[in-house]
Amino acid sequence: MRLFALPGLPEVHPGDDLNALIGAGLAAAAETLQTGDVVVIAQKIVSKAEGRLVTLDSVQPSTTAHELAAQADKDPRLVELILQESAEVLRCRPGVIVVEHRLGFVMANAGIDQSNVHQAGAGTALLLPLDPDASCERIRAALRASTGAEVAVLVIDSHGRAWRQGTVGVTIGAAGMPALLDLRGRPDRHGRTLRVTEVGQADEVAAAASLLMGQADEGRPVVVVRGVPQMAGIAWGAGSGKARDLVRPREMDMFR
Amino acid sequence: MRLFALPGLPEVHPGDDLNALIGAGLAAAAETLQTGDVVVIAQKIVSKAEGRLVTLDSVQPSTTAHELAAQADKDPRLVELILQESAEVLRCRPGVIVVEHRLGFVMANAGIDQSNVHQAGAGTALLLPLDPDASCERIRAALRASTGAEVAVLVIDSHGRAWRQGTVGVTIGAAGMPALLDLRGRPDRHGRTLRVTEVGQADEVAAAASLLMGQADEGRPVVVVRGVPQMAGIAWGAGSGKARDLVRPREMDMFR
Repeated sequence: MRLFALPGLPEVHPGDDLNALIGAGLAAAAETLQTGDVVVIAQKIVSKAEGRLVTLDSVQPSTTAHELAAQADKDPRLVELILQESAEVLRCRPGVIVVEHRLGFVMANAGIDQSNVHQAGAGTALLLPLDPDASCERIRAALRASTGAEVAVLVIDSHGRAWRQGTVGVTIGAAGMPALLDLRGRPDRHGRTLRVTEVGQADEVAAAASLLMGQADEGRPVVVVRGVPQMAGIAWGAGSGKARDLVRPREMDMFR
Repeated sequence: MRLFALPGLPEVHPGDDLNALIGAGLAAAAETLQTGDVVVIAQKIVSKAEGRLVTLDSVQPSTTAHELAAQADKDPRLVELILQESAEVLRCRPGVIVVEHRLGFVMANAGIDQSNVHQAGAGTALLLPLDPDASCERIRAALRASTGAEVAVLVIDSHGRAWRQGTVGVTIGAAGMPALLDLRGRPDRHGRTLRVTEVGQADEVAAAASLLMGQADEGRPVVVVRGVPQMAGIAWGAGSGKARDLVRPREMDMFR
């Protein structure tokens, strides 16, 4: 398995064509996409290209936003955006509001935080893409049209974990590969039932790619992963996976 | 970044020399270790080599073990082992007992489950290594002596997550590389403070390697990861990291 980052991608602006930017990055790296590659893209540039910047001055915080902002020591306008992006607030502590995002993911600050605001320019905040699975499918179709390769596309973010220190790359949008590998009932090579039955395969690819992206604005927001093993009988390609499959259903949640 | 699995490792038995097995695997793959490589090893073969097999008939379940076994629908002897390996039981549901392992990791069934028992042979269970960080340091020293390369070593397992479906590879033992990358206060290339401040770097390497290991007894329990980016000012090498650094301290736990 081999991973490489695309060099020299420019700052992304609303309306930019990510397919063209990826094409230019591949050319700069003297690489071409191959069928079976996974193109892993940082959430931030997808959000920027899709115009998900919000001017904080345009935000009117609710009473709830003011209350949570005081508890979390955050800008009430930012907290209002967090609430608008969320289905439920799970925890509120100084510096962090853990929510169920409208996309289903349990995460800190709905993916919007103070330094993100800072990065995006004075007085603006950057929200997650409206529908990251759909973003991936669009980019996948565009890459297929421009390169002829049948690739998978992931949009990833960095998330904290409940009981482990440190963030890791996780998938918030997927197309063209199974996000969740359902191995239940499949025998191993000795004919015995597998111990591990469902694997967060797209999250493992996200974590791998994250190692090469580096942190913050280091300019390596696209990583190509070549040689991810494909299991017999598990389809890649059109309609084969969504990051939504990685969301644990509420009725299976032991820790909310 | 490049990853490759070592081919054709034999079944591991108590007392086996993992250094020698890895050497034979490298020779079979016509590869040599290089300084900066990360050698990622599945927990199962480390546990087997260290003789962490327990005969279930030797286990006398306590009253608590019988009660939890009824709730979890598990063998009371297995539950007794889970309790002996754990500092605290967080949740008990049919099929799963979520514990804080004595090593600090919050995980299902203390890393011992029914199919694991089955795999290890009728009537035996396989426990985690006594001290996986120490195991890594020993293997690292042996590989340095036998190959001359200054490598990092990780022992990994597959864990579920609280709010995401599917298991991912995570690090339970580390030596020679930072497990947790502490970037707090480090500026990015524009001189701004980084948004993401602590990265679970060893967990990202574990997830990447896990993609190549496959599931259960597929015989690829050792993966070499070459080209993990090393950040300026963050030490690799002797004494540079422990998987214990990835354990969230209890006072920072919002979800227990």
